[in-house]
Amino acid sequence: MRNLPIQTILSDSRKEKPNPETLVFGRSFTDHMFTAEYDEGIGWHSHRIVPYAPVTLDPAAIVFHYGQTVFEGLKAYRSSDGTVRLFRPEENMKRMNQSLDRLCMPKIDEEMALQALTELIQIEKDWIPTLKGTSLYIRPFVIANEAFLGVAPSKKYQFFIILSPVGSYYKEGIHPIKILVENEFVRAVKGGTGGAKTAGNYASGLKAQEVANERGLSQVLWLDGVERKYIEEVGSMNIFFKIDGEVVTPAINGSILEGITRKSILHLLHHWNIPVAERKVSIEEIQEAFEAGKLEEVFGTGTAAVISPVGELNWDGYKMVVNDGKTGPLARQLFNTLTNIQTGLAEDPFDWVLELKNELAKLA
Amino acid sequence: MRNLPIQTILSDSRKEKPNPETLVFGRSFTDHMFTAEYDEGIGWHSHRIVPYAPVTLDPAAIVFHYGQTVFEGLKAYRSSDGTVRLFRPEENMKRMNQSLDRLCMPKIDEEMALQALTELIQIEKDWIPTLKGTSLYIRPFVIANEAFLGVAPSKKYQFFIILSPVGSYYKEGIHPIKILVENEFVRAVKGGTGGAKTAGNYASGLKAQEVANERGLSQVLWLDGVERKYIEEVGSMNIFFKIDGEVVTPAINGSILEGITRKSILHLLHHWNIPVAERKVSIEEIQEAFEAGKLEEVFGTGTAAVISPVGELNWDGYKMVVNDGKTGPLARQLFNTLTNIQTGLAEDPFDWVLELKNELAKLA
Repeated sequence: MRNLPIQTILSDSRKEKPNPETLVFGRSFTDHMFTAEYDEGIGWHSHRIVPYAPVTLDPAAIVFHYGQTVFEGLKAYRSSDGTVRLFRPEENMKRMNQSLDRLCMPKIDEEMALQALTELIQIEKDWIPTLKGTSLYIRPFVIANEAFLGVAPSKKYQFFIILSPVGSYYKEGIHPIKILVENEFVRAVKGGTGGAKTAGNYASGLKAQEVANERGLSQVLWLDGVERKYIEEVGSMNIFFKIDGEVVTPAINGSILEGITRKSILHLLHHWNIPVAERKVSIEEIQEAFEAGKLEEVFGTGTAAVISPVGELNWDGYKMVVNDGKTGPLARQLFNTLTNIQTGLAEDPFDWVLELKNELAKLA
Repeated sequence: MRNLPIQTILSDSRKEKPNPETLVFGRSFTDHMFTAEYDEGIGWHSHRIVPYAPVTLDPAAIVFHYGQTVFEGLKAYRSSDGTVRLFRPEENMKRMNQSLDRLCMPKIDEEMALQALTELIQIEKDWIPTLKGTSLYIRPFVIANEAFLGVAPSKKYQFFIILSPVGSYYKEGIHPIKILVENEFVRAVKGGTGGAKTAGNYASGLKAQEVANERGLSQVLWLDGVERKYIEEVGSMNIFFKIDGEVVTPAINGSILEGITRKSILHLLHHWNIPVAERKVSIEEIQEAFEAGKLEEVFGTGTAAVISPVGELNWDGYKMVVNDGKTGPLARQLFNTLTNIQTGLAEDPFDWVLELKNELAKLA
């Protein structure tokens, strides 16, 4: 890892840490954050760790008007011996640069970002909860902050890493969700920004989510925007189907976000010699498999939930109950394997985990 | 107009006003702004005019991460007798509410917004340039400012109106632009947010614009995201074609922004008994019309430029030069008619202009 000088200004006060038993997602933040600034002609500069504080922006800042912003999400886990683990953080930084490029934003130095993250976590390590299922959610993001109302890429940006201790996604253990197959709204289309982790994709999904919630369903299954038949994602997760012994997930096509959990699951399935295919999957194919009794499991994958089993698909009122509405054995096996690797309870045969014990010792 | 109590706090200092001869778009802002806040369960409150000042937001504010934000754009013109004119401002406030609804954001009170705008302009009227072609650009916008990393509609919002004196869009008179017919990138698709004035649509268009600029072309002509053949918009403007005496513009279809200039032009064309159709227009149809010598004029329409003639379309290297690359008579007639109505140089037979003389006198 590079050794960039990062200025550190520690906070005079410390916030009270939330009770790990009642932690929710994304509501509380730690005492410090990392930030750096970019100016055209200068590049990234002023890398620093500072007390967590409000951002001050001109009302004409481009991010407010034209949405030039990109983010990432990953987690740090702490075990009882104090070791802190990050899961494939270099993949997040790599993807962040792909997103930045799509949005005409300047790339970050991936090694710098990993170094900044490591130093920030060293300072905030007491904020990482150790209770089973809890973790420290890490949110790197870049915003365009030039004050200009012309529709053009900003000449100024700010990069942040903020940290939020989060609870177990499943309060009472992993449990299946009911989802609505979305026919009206579209998340993204080839040629758009669906493959990038950028704000507009999430804004556009809120309306469909609202409609699903009104119907008692917790997430939306997105179909492609062209033929309205091929499956894309579920909510803000990738999706997998187990059909007659084979695991199938939509291929990366330009409108689907390439999840790091998705990639890790594909790797595990290959490793376990379970038949797996990345290809187009139509909703009709899922219906046919369901009717033939071959739709064995459905689950979403993402950083927040890791694995989110789907117990019911509702397509225009046609209900497909999957595995009696219960978590399937493959979903459970994948969840246990991945979370055990992430938390250090199992071996890490693929070198996915960055253990911060040594990194932290060096910095201490 | 309603009479809502709007608190006014005037600035202690006044900025120097920019030289109207060298004004550019969206770079300088006036001394004051309007703002109001929204909290779930309370509604919009704290309506106030305050000195133009930076916005302070938590780094976890939803607008930075999930792009919940909506804006509008309109202009105020001031004539030599001091009369200030707004062009169909009620249409902007109506469209703003349609955009807010698509983004799961709370509606504003349209009359309140018009009253706020009127009072703000009264205070800032000396900022409205009077030089031919100049105006005061008005940017109302709403951002989601709750500090929360969950993907859900914000429970807190802030509404702003900021003002920017802007120069003539055409420094040397109205002149045609060269545009690239975009085959790779897509602006929006039916079921997405293309019909709303929201940040993500603009962020997604930057990359195509960058590619066009590298090829010496100044704007992008968007094709539909499904069949990649039907014309949608040009840059961030609506588009019109005059083919063999008939004016054609793409019909509103859910992925095109319904421009107020577009709507006004359709009205003028009907009024003048010029044949006009709102329907699907394919790029092949434009090519056929061009080859048959029937493509008489092409122009974009929007608030910033009013009318922007297109002198050349470049489709995969195939060049279509329109009207010898010169501004056509219909584009010129529409530009003159609209700008004369907007600035008070011509009669306003359609009751489009809100004259602020009386409104301002009442407030003075």
